[in-house]
Amino acid sequence: MRAALLLEYDGGGFVGWQRQENGLSVQQVLEEAASRLVHGAPVVSAVAGRTDAGVHAEGQVALLDLPRDLAPERLRDALNFHLRPHPVVVLCAAPAPAGWHPRFSARARCYRYRILNRPARPALTAGRVWHVERPLDVPAMAAAAAALLGRHDFSSFRASLCQASSPVKTLDRLDVTRAGDMVEVRAGARSFLHHQVRNMVGTLKLVGEGRWPAAHVAEVLAARDRRRAGPTAPAEGLCLTGVRYDEDLFAQGPEMPG
Amino acid sequence: MRAALLLEYDGGGFVGWQRQENGLSVQQVLEEAASRLVHGAPVVSAVAGRTDAGVHAEGQVALLDLPRDLAPERLRDALNFHLRPHPVVVLCAAPAPAGWHPRFSARARCYRYRILNRPARPALTAGRVWHVERPLDVPAMAAAAAALLGRHDFSSFRASLCQASSPVKTLDRLDVTRAGDMVEVRAGARSFLHHQVRNMVGTLKLVGEGRWPAAHVAEVLAARDRRRAGPTAPAEGLCLTGVRYDEDLFAQGPEMPG
Repeated sequence: MRAALLLEYDGGGFVGWQRQENGLSVQQVLEEAASRLVHGAPVVSAVAGRTDAGVHAEGQVALLDLPRDLAPERLRDALNFHLRPHPVVVLCAAPAPAGWHPRFSARARCYRYRILNRPARPALTAGRVWHVERPLDVPAMAAAAAALLGRHDFSSFRASLCQASSPVKTLDRLDVTRAGDMVEVRAGARSFLHHQVRNMVGTLKLVGEGRWPAAHVAEVLAARDRRRAGPTAPAEGLCLTGVRYDEDLFAQGPEMPG
Repeated sequence: MRAALLLEYDGGGFVGWQRQENGLSVQQVLEEAASRLVHGAPVVSAVAGRTDAGVHAEGQVALLDLPRDLAPERLRDALNFHLRPHPVVVLCAAPAPAGWHPRFSARARCYRYRILNRPARPALTAGRVWHVERPLDVPAMAAAAAALLGRHDFSSFRASLCQASSPVKTLDRLDVTRAGDMVEVRAGARSFLHHQVRNMVGTLKLVGEGRWPAAHVAEVLAARDRRRAGPTAPAEGLCLTGVRYDEDLFAQGPEMPG
């Protein structure tokens, strides 16, 4: 059976989604849990967004190929049993439609980046936010963000290790809002370059601190030069909140972009 | 100097607010940090709400008596420096008004209780929620909660260890709402009995699961018998979100009840 899974995980203790030699990955934990359901046979997974080390997910979508049929709810509960004690859970499982692939069929991905903007370091939100002490000018950040919307060459916001064939992407959403001490950036696009969201947030933060005028961000974009943009924001503030497909995979899904 | 402090802490690793022989308390951590500011002289604190083991706070209010004057922002930053690495931070410090006391001057306390209502255990909200798998009927819980509003003898919801002189309290607010998988109970009153919020939540959960009709909660209240109410909800879902005073202590405070 091919099963689509909706996943939540705390990326803090992982080397990222993808299997690596140097530490525990979410993929390894998921595949090993799935392997327990089929008497130790190896199980291979694919995923919508290969999140980096430390990046969280509330709505990651994965595909599991299993040599055995299981009712979706039983599959969810059995995987969750074997995923213990890792901070990875299956929110929902469903039969995967024919030809569907979590990465290549994705229509949109939505990320949320949280900045805790106050003098005191986080206590209750430790590991979930970027702590920025200097007061951020959110309207200026929102104005700068608007300049990044649309179809552009995002080379200025692309990690050197990025394997995408083209630096041209279409950014559909980049909202910056504040609720008390928490500043949230929400980004939506069909796909992103490696580190694109974190590099955009690191740049918007410089605008929010008043170090760069909002209008400077359009120049940074036009330069197509990674050295012109701000630093990469830390992983722990980032969360993959949802992935959208043409197919309605899960009865009750997470927050969807758009 | 007498300083009023606004505190945030993760109660997970503490025996509660109050100093105890059997483990680390928030009070001990705060007083030891303050003692570092005055060359090791002992410092005594008082607090608005003596939270139990595992209970969190976003808006706890404390009083520190210090044998030395410090500017409020310097006091906040110096305490935060010495509070590391404990998950306790000072959000704001201010000179305490004459005659003001964090506990006895409090006009209202506001608590939030979070229930994660879904099949999968929490990954990102672990330690911050009560995980309840069975779908909760939130309108029924809200109807039951309404029966508890006002001035009553809350003996049915009072811990046997409660030291309050009277079981009569006035409950000003008890809202039950849902946002996706998260069910929130918000409670506001001048003061609460020991375990009152957690006992009310444990009772409302039985209504939400359909085990008790909403109208049964009024009977439980009228019985003035702890054995008639539901079990005590776990500590980790509870957070003291704010305390209100006649005085406007902090320039920018947390969410206030009412």
